[in-house]
Amino acid sequence: MSVYLKDISLAEAKAKFQAALQDAELWKILDDETIKLDEFASGRVLTESIWAKISTPHYSSSAMDGFAVKAVDTIGALPSNPIIIKVGEKASYLDTGDPLPNKFDAVIPIEYVESLDIEGKITREIRNPIYIRIRAAVPPWSHIRLMGEDIVQTQLVLPAGQILRAVDLGAIAAAGYQQIKVSRKPKVAILPTGTELVPIGSNLQAGDILEYNSLVIAAQILTWGGDPTRYTIIPDNLEAICAMVQEAARNNDLILLNAGSSAGKEDYSSMVVEKLGTLLVHGVAIRPGHPVILGLIDQGTSPSSPLSTTLPSKKIPIIGVPGYPGSAALTSEIFVEPLMAKWLGRAQLELPVEKARITHKITSPGGDDDFVRVIVGKVGNKELAAPISSGAGSITSLVKADGFVIIPRGVQGLENEDEVDVHLYRKLLDIERTIFCIGSHDMSLDILAQSLAGKNRRLASSNVGSLGGIISLQRGDAHIAGSHLLDPKTGEYNLNYIHQYLNDLPVNVYGFVGRKQGLIINKGNPKGIHGLQDLENPGVHFINRQRGAGTRVLLEYHLNKLGMEPAAINGFDQEEYTHLGVAAAVASERADCGLGISSAAQALNLDFIPLFNETYQLIIPKEFVNSVLLAPLFEVINSTQYQEAVAAMPGYDVSEMGKLVAEV
Amino acid sequence: MSVYLKDISLAEAKAKFQAALQDAELWKILDDETIKLDEFASGRVLTESIWAKISTPHYSSSAMDGFAVKAVDTIGALPSNPIIIKVGEKASYLDTGDPLPNKFDAVIPIEYVESLDIEGKITREIRNPIYIRIRAAVPPWSHIRLMGEDIVQTQLVLPAGQILRAVDLGAIAAAGYQQIKVSRKPKVAILPTGTELVPIGSNLQAGDILEYNSLVIAAQILTWGGDPTRYTIIPDNLEAICAMVQEAARNNDLILLNAGSSAGKEDYSSMVVEKLGTLLVHGVAIRPGHPVILGLIDQGTSPSSPLSTTLPSKKIPIIGVPGYPGSAALTSEIFVEPLMAKWLGRAQLELPVEKARITHKITSPGGDDDFVRVIVGKVGNKELAAPISSGAGSITSLVKADGFVIIPRGVQGLENEDEVDVHLYRKLLDIERTIFCIGSHDMSLDILAQSLAGKNRRLASSNVGSLGGIISLQRGDAHIAGSHLLDPKTGEYNLNYIHQYLNDLPVNVYGFVGRKQGLIINKGNPKGIHGLQDLENPGVHFINRQRGAGTRVLLEYHLNKLGMEPAAINGFDQEEYTHLGVAAAVASERADCGLGISSAAQALNLDFIPLFNETYQLIIPKEFVNSVLLAPLFEVINSTQYQEAVAAMPGYDVSEMGKLVAEV
Repeated sequence: MSVYLKDISLAEAKAKFQAALQDAELWKILDDETIKLDEFASGRVLTESIWAKISTPHYSSSAMDGFAVKAVDTIGALPSNPIIIKVGEKASYLDTGDPLPNKFDAVIPIEYVESLDIEGKITREIRNPIYIRIRAAVPPWSHIRLMGEDIVQTQLVLPAGQILRAVDLGAIAAAGYQQIKVSRKPKVAILPTGTELVPIGSNLQAGDILEYNSLVIAAQILTWGGDPTRYTIIPDNLEAICAMVQEAARNNDLILLNAGSSAGKEDYSSMVVEKLGTLLVHGVAIRPGHPVILGLIDQGTSPSSPLSTTLPSKKIPIIGVPGYPGSAALTSEIFVEPLMAKWLGRAQLELPVEKARITHKITSPGGDDDFVRVIVGKVGNKELAAPISSGAGSITSLVKADGFVIIPRGVQGLENEDEVDVHLYRKLLDIERTIFCIGSHDMSLDILAQSLAGKNRRLASSNVGSLGGIISLQRGDAHIAGSHLLDPKTGEYNLNYIHQYLNDLPVNVYGFVGRKQGLIINKGNPKGIHGLQDLENPGVHFINRQRGAGTRVLLEYHLNKLGMEPAAINGFDQEEYTHLGVAAAVASERADCGLGISSAAQALNLDFIPLFNETYQLIIPKEFVNSVLLAPLFEVINSTQYQEAVAAMPGYDVSEMGKLVAEV
Repeated sequence: MSVYLKDISLAEAKAKFQAALQDAELWKILDDETIKLDEFASGRVLTESIWAKISTPHYSSSAMDGFAVKAVDTIGALPSNPIIIKVGEKASYLDTGDPLPNKFDAVIPIEYVESLDIEGKITREIRNPIYIRIRAAVPPWSHIRLMGEDIVQTQLVLPAGQILRAVDLGAIAAAGYQQIKVSRKPKVAILPTGTELVPIGSNLQAGDILEYNSLVIAAQILTWGGDPTRYTIIPDNLEAICAMVQEAARNNDLILLNAGSSAGKEDYSSMVVEKLGTLLVHGVAIRPGHPVILGLIDQGTSPSSPLSTTLPSKKIPIIGVPGYPGSAALTSEIFVEPLMAKWLGRAQLELPVEKARITHKITSPGGDDDFVRVIVGKVGNKELAAPISSGAGSITSLVKADGFVIIPRGVQGLENEDEVDVHLYRKLLDIERTIFCIGSHDMSLDILAQSLAGKNRRLASSNVGSLGGIISLQRGDAHIAGSHLLDPKTGEYNLNYIHQYLNDLPVNVYGFVGRKQGLIINKGNPKGIHGLQDLENPGVHFINRQRGAGTRVLLEYHLNKLGMEPAAINGFDQEEYTHLGVAAAVASERADCGLGISSAAQALNLDFIPLFNETYQLIIPKEFVNSVLLAPLFEVINSTQYQEAVAAMPGYDVSEMGKLVAEV
């Protein structure tokens, strides 16, 4: 496919965009504005350096509650040779912070002073005595907070470019400022286009696509310090889009035209840019985000707008943001954030980079810089990056991602165990709290994830089937495998497979759930299915689970018992990776039935024919059993609250949950 | 000193506070509220788990622009054996995202299709042909985006407790939500008390203290997700404070009573708490922040408040926050942030911890958990933590701090080179961009810091005098030493000291500034000072620089030449660490004169008697000369812009700036 013939590298695209912005005098701080320190200044970017207008303290003061004296008057005082000083002329009581009178040069803290009355006797009037008696000399300037001790007038307190934090506001106030100059927040228009788009909350029809990219991009812009405006959805109509872009241009600093993702729809964006200005770049060699468009158009003038200018030729950048959520979010990070940084006068955001080992092979087309989102965690001493396989169309992949790995243009992919640099969205601390649970899918894991979130743990569960989970343990890529692998010879679960694959790895096996497997069918059973025998009916389309899934093993075990041949089953080679995937296939009439658990059928309002009871267990390497990381997990699975929540799902038995079933 | 007799450990104080909050049913999420997804939801904390209400995609659709077909109709198609399919009945054009009609089960991308007209000839009507010709079979479900591929209805999309990020909003919208439940922002009243306090922007008199703690605390609360209200300053009057606290209690969830820092003033806070409720803790063994007060008072009822309740006994926590800025900020971090976290339903913020070596000895009283703020940086391969010596009264120490080290109760201090855990406020990336410049103070370093901030570098300059800088290089604690040490024997600068102290360390010496040293005196020269000889006048009070400072060496050199005795100089043993410190001493009439540079005199509007020209150079170990870290520094000091800015200061000569003067 070579739709984007003009694809250039990311570096070239950025350079071209920047050069055009420089020519248009737009590659600099936009403007500044003066705000009061107490007007939500934190998070704003200083555009002036703060040179102290006053010193702090602006006068010398007592650092203690005590008596100001002249140091010279205390010379010779000793425990054995106390000196008595008259209060008033030669000493004066000061609270902490009180200004030091010019004639004094030291303070004696009150606890080192005896207060005396007119007769020289100790008095309870400790702050207003007639005399004080001291038993030690004080050096000059002791217990004095000197003028300028913290800030001397004219010194640099904060440089321009500082992103203001809470404490900075205090220092700026102390330096004598009441208001400051900060960069103006760039106004960013987000224009969703596409006839198929409907606003969130709409009653969905087939063909409708929920428009939420503008929500995500607006939140990104806010986070980066900009001022976003979401425009209403514009249908695929060149004139309508042009009109809205021109209106937006008059009132904003940047336009993001979020187009549908097909080639047909993108063309509108490039046509709009060509019609209203200069198309600089169309198509960049990045994945996702390939069809990005960069351009400059005339801003136009609006008499009512504060941005109106006497120069009619003022330009405004426009970015055509591709429509897939993964592409939209990345395009925004790559092209919009640096522009925000430049306009605001701050450094570009930079994600911290950590080394990790990739958990499985990824192929990459090789023509693009490929941004692969990954889940990151630590299993034992191994930092792992698990690629998220779903494509740019998946919004959940963005939610799950802890960061991304870049496979550069010209590289065809990564092998399992390759060391990679992960650009991290999350803090390392959060990542170290991730529990990798790989294996078979069960809906009680979702409830577990929810409970663990309240205990500062994240359950990253990856559904690769029971056997896949055991193999992940063997490779050191998981803390837990969830498994329900039936041994056809013994009728036992899991143990045989553990012996076979985890020979050198001591593990504990814990009971988790007993559950009902059966056929998930459409409401009302339109195909008249009653058991596995009906799968051979040529009018019945089956949906299967992938090889290595416990459910697949269970199916093949029972087919074998019934003397049935897989080849005779229509759809036996169509595979889904989860129970819910199977249920979704049935619900969308892609298949008539599949083997799965009853809760998945219930979730999608389908019917269910119960067939078999099975045992789902958690396999945990002994090295993690007593870890701090997993402690909250054991707490949850042994809690009545969690067990009751799971038992409430149809077909679930929690009587073995949390029990140590075997040590291997 | 044992003013705070009831001091308890931090852990005990926290436990006591938490237990009281639990009893009052306040140690939980405050309330939730329903907001629309587009109402600035990002940053808010989810209080409900998001289980998908709809699947995404909610229908199966084409993943490409192409023709929907039945896979079975394509069997047998080969390059040598094309198959022709009639459009309409057996094939249908779909744009990417179009719903897949029920009768089809695969899509052939348009680029693999030949469009034919009614006569079987290739037509340009590629989307509306009569027939299509294909030369390869397609498997079922190829190029289809399946219903539920991203999200299956009922699955967990986000757990409660999630702090919403931009991408989360998209996933929540995709899951069928238009509004969500988030925790209500806790309302926090900040009440500054103290007769000596004046609002920022006031015309300051001696004894006035600028009230900016409430600004800092309010910004902290905002950052932590709360809703702060700053109350006006209340003078030290028990009734007035009680009245304001009661008013604030009716409309808030938490009261922060920010009191003066002296023992006398704190008593008001504890009296207020005792009068209105229960004083739980008074004084905690932490430094700074010792005099903190924790209590619970009755909230009272306000008919107009949305918080009003039928239970008249509802409690509200109150925290007496000490007055020093360092104490106030830390108290807030230690006691307020965890409460915000609990009320919002999120995990407590946790600072990342890094190992570093402490650059110099710190003593600690031993009775407290001592929170020592530090500047962190990397010199070569050494991670360093330089303690900031200024006390709790310093607001600039908060600005400079990259993090803190805790010296636990019972430990008397740390030795130079001790390894410590630093709790980091800043990101590691920023810290690795810190240039440690230790040595003599010069005002051009402030301008340099300002210029470097624009180039993504931070100049952490520490003023310990010229010799101190050279010793820091020797210990590997600095990238640069700024030095103007005169060798009395040769009249040369620095080289002799470098040979003596940096025997094993190859360094380059760069010219920086020539400057004028002289006597800083009060406006109008009231003491009639004309030269060093006048320092022996008993009516003249001198202020000196510390041992090891280049200015001190210069002074002693010239005193020696003049045959003058230090002992004869009044104030010779009073030391300041910077030129501005000397100028500030003169300006506050603590001294009559001191030796320093003219720009310091000018900064504080003082007079200046020029005496000597001197050379100030930068000494840089060769290992750092070509580093990425220092490249922007060389760029700046070789730029006309910077040199002109420095030359504009009185008495400055930049003719040698940036030149390599010596390699040693």
